[in-house]
Amino acid sequence: MKKLLLVLSLYGFFLIPCASAQREDSIMIRKIFNEALKNGFAYTWLQDLAANIGARLSGSSEAEKAVQWVKNQMMASLADSVWLQPCMVPHWVRGEKEIGKIIDSKNTIQQVPVCALGRSVATPKAGITATIIEVHDFDELRRLGEKNIKGKIVFYNYPFDQTFINTFDAYSEAVWYRWAGPSEAARFGAIATVCRSMTNINDDNPHTGAMQYNDSLPKIPCCAISTNGADLLSSILKADPKTKFFLKMSCQVLDSVKSYNVIGEIKGSEHPEEIITVGGHLDSWETGKGVSDDGTGVVQAMEIIHLFKQLGIKPKRTIRAVAFMNEENGGMGGAKYAEQAKLKNEKHVAAIESDAGGFTPYGFGLDMAAEKKERVKRWKDLFLSYNIWNFELSHGGSDIDHLKEKLNVPCIGLGVDSQRYFDLHHAASDTFDKVNRRELELGAAAMGALVYLLTEYGL
Amino acid sequence: MKKLLLVLSLYGFFLIPCASAQREDSIMIRKIFNEALKNGFAYTWLQDLAANIGARLSGSSEAEKAVQWVKNQMMASLADSVWLQPCMVPHWVRGEKEIGKIIDSKNTIQQVPVCALGRSVATPKAGITATIIEVHDFDELRRLGEKNIKGKIVFYNYPFDQTFINTFDAYSEAVWYRWAGPSEAARFGAIATVCRSMTNINDDNPHTGAMQYNDSLPKIPCCAISTNGADLLSSILKADPKTKFFLKMSCQVLDSVKSYNVIGEIKGSEHPEEIITVGGHLDSWETGKGVSDDGTGVVQAMEIIHLFKQLGIKPKRTIRAVAFMNEENGGMGGAKYAEQAKLKNEKHVAAIESDAGGFTPYGFGLDMAAEKKERVKRWKDLFLSYNIWNFELSHGGSDIDHLKEKLNVPCIGLGVDSQRYFDLHHAASDTFDKVNRRELELGAAAMGALVYLLTEYGL
Repeated sequence: MKKLLLVLSLYGFFLIPCASAQREDSIMIRKIFNEALKNGFAYTWLQDLAANIGARLSGSSEAEKAVQWVKNQMMASLADSVWLQPCMVPHWVRGEKEIGKIIDSKNTIQQVPVCALGRSVATPKAGITATIIEVHDFDELRRLGEKNIKGKIVFYNYPFDQTFINTFDAYSEAVWYRWAGPSEAARFGAIATVCRSMTNINDDNPHTGAMQYNDSLPKIPCCAISTNGADLLSSILKADPKTKFFLKMSCQVLDSVKSYNVIGEIKGSEHPEEIITVGGHLDSWETGKGVSDDGTGVVQAMEIIHLFKQLGIKPKRTIRAVAFMNEENGGMGGAKYAEQAKLKNEKHVAAIESDAGGFTPYGFGLDMAAEKKERVKRWKDLFLSYNIWNFELSHGGSDIDHLKEKLNVPCIGLGVDSQRYFDLHHAASDTFDKVNRRELELGAAAMGALVYLLTEYGL
Repeated sequence: MKKLLLVLSLYGFFLIPCASAQREDSIMIRKIFNEALKNGFAYTWLQDLAANIGARLSGSSEAEKAVQWVKNQMMASLADSVWLQPCMVPHWVRGEKEIGKIIDSKNTIQQVPVCALGRSVATPKAGITATIIEVHDFDELRRLGEKNIKGKIVFYNYPFDQTFINTFDAYSEAVWYRWAGPSEAARFGAIATVCRSMTNINDDNPHTGAMQYNDSLPKIPCCAISTNGADLLSSILKADPKTKFFLKMSCQVLDSVKSYNVIGEIKGSEHPEEIITVGGHLDSWETGKGVSDDGTGVVQAMEIIHLFKQLGIKPKRTIRAVAFMNEENGGMGGAKYAEQAKLKNEKHVAAIESDAGGFTPYGFGLDMAAEKKERVKRWKDLFLSYNIWNFELSHGGSDIDHLKEKLNVPCIGLGVDSQRYFDLHHAASDTFDKVNRRELELGAAAMGALVYLLTEYGL
């Protein structure tokens, strides 16, 4: 009997504090969500960023303005400290508005919306005109080979697979034609590439994005064409395979520029040396306003500082909100942050990134060792009433990936409803009016809640 | 040993067909989603409906055009049969554009966006002007009583509670001021009411919606005011409690009109007498275009006929896609459908409704007996890879509610992401450009998959 009592008492000893801790966590998470939904700043910040700074390609004056803007807002949110972390970034400029024209064998000319891919070289000043050949995938490119490709422009027409539920899966599959397509085509003597835009919708916006040259192959100019333009080009080519394409682009790489990550910190009260990083990237393409990619991630990270300060939460571990520079065309900000973390022998508990738009959150991607995943998943029930249920997503984020590579830091990606993201991605349509305040704040609160648990318990 | 073998063999006998049936169901559901996402018609239909018919208030010529339009599209989708089910509907008309003005005690006049609530009586032709008194809830109204209310206009200023994650919970709480507010105010001698719009956002659109007079009390004119207008009015009243309000509305109730539910059917191959109903409502308010409320539900129901026919699925039980008439201001279509079902002694397995917008689906509301709920929940795993996970929602739908009341039919509501719905609800902003094709088709496919399982297994 005594033994039973002892067992019960021990059971009670462990159970009650545990249940009570969970209740307290649940209350705190509710507070974080309530504060974000009622009094959050993220939406107003985003509107200000979009309206008064706009697009922010690395190396541009807008990117530098944005650095100061984030710093000022973080200071106004009463972060314990805010600083700029210098990093050199590439400075690619688009130049004049690009021109693309379909010229059929009867010399009928139709202009179509195109834009240079990030890092592309220019065409000759007068533009280039050549026969254009449609290629559906790399296999077809190889089958066609040099005898069919040489001297021509290659038109990659690989549409998004609409049957993927997560649109990032369609992107992951198709993006290789944008990223590696130019050099692969150059391998067979192509003189330029035109790539179908990476989007789920039929629209008239060319969607830009980074490409990467293979240094052992000739660097040829490469552009994206709107999906409507791609469909038109494809239908014209079917009827008239001798159709030519005219492309004129004046983009160029200038000297690298000194830029910055912006870091705002709340020092941990018990384990200040243990750091939880939460961030998004501040740079953006300049085709749109850089709102959903990734102004949303930046203001959500800033919101976490703001929420913790507003609620008077004194985290046990250190929180760092980071606006990373140069995610789009270089990743130099993320690399620098990890490099400095390693150099200073910092202890990073985990890093969280939001870079999939400010849409309704539904889960987290856990990119970490299995036993750490299980630890995060133990918190799952705390998120269910916020419709955040999926802890089986895998991706962390491209800025925080460097922390994983260099320091094996557990990385977490905010998983949000992906249906609308690629409608806007890297295009003129990436504007403020596409963002819903509640969706944006739910994402901030979801990350805030997870940051809170990580500051309380570590990982 | 023999017994063990027998057990194993029986186990195998039951297990293998069961696993294989689940595999087949999973394959069929994947086909339904793929077909919807690749070749669905719902989005194009919705665009057509919005552009060429537009808003469709019960009794209007647009509602009648829409009836014929749905019938024609269902026939073109090769439904086994399509018919119109007559029902009498109320015919309320808004009349001239309503005018609302704030007149402070210095006679400064500011016009604010207002619109009549559905069923409201008109003001006198010249409008009415009276002192306006702000009331935050019914308790305050009662406390103020006749001595403070009589002869005045009551301004209900009950904002949405932003902390609800599901915005329908905020609506359910606030909507009583729109629905019952006018008669409650009339009880204390008010001569009109102005109700803060039912929305999560600050905008300049008044959001209309139905109200219900208490027949034992005077019928007073009642309108909705935009949330920005409500905030302005509230701030003016704080500084200047003698502020008056001018309201002019010419709405009226005309004679009831014969209208129709539109029903498209695929006859069941094994149990044709067992019916699964899936629907949305065809009528809409005329402040916007009636797209998200509830053009989306109608085209999703139509899509199910289309998908089954395209995929050559011959359902074992009968499917009926129904475009219900008059959900917004009477519910006569839903009532008629249930009444006829009862009269004809029809056997209804289940009814599904989509009336929360064409947003990303995440679950189903199961409004049925506990043991039936459990049966539906056994299918949960089949939906998880489509991010449909929550089978704990409770609401069915207001059109199918009549089937539940009259025949105890299990009712199911499609649960979709609710963050954006009340931005558009019953307002000028309910237009086609707010709909995303993939979100809309995911909703159609989710219902299609559930309809498929119900036709295969009953409930």
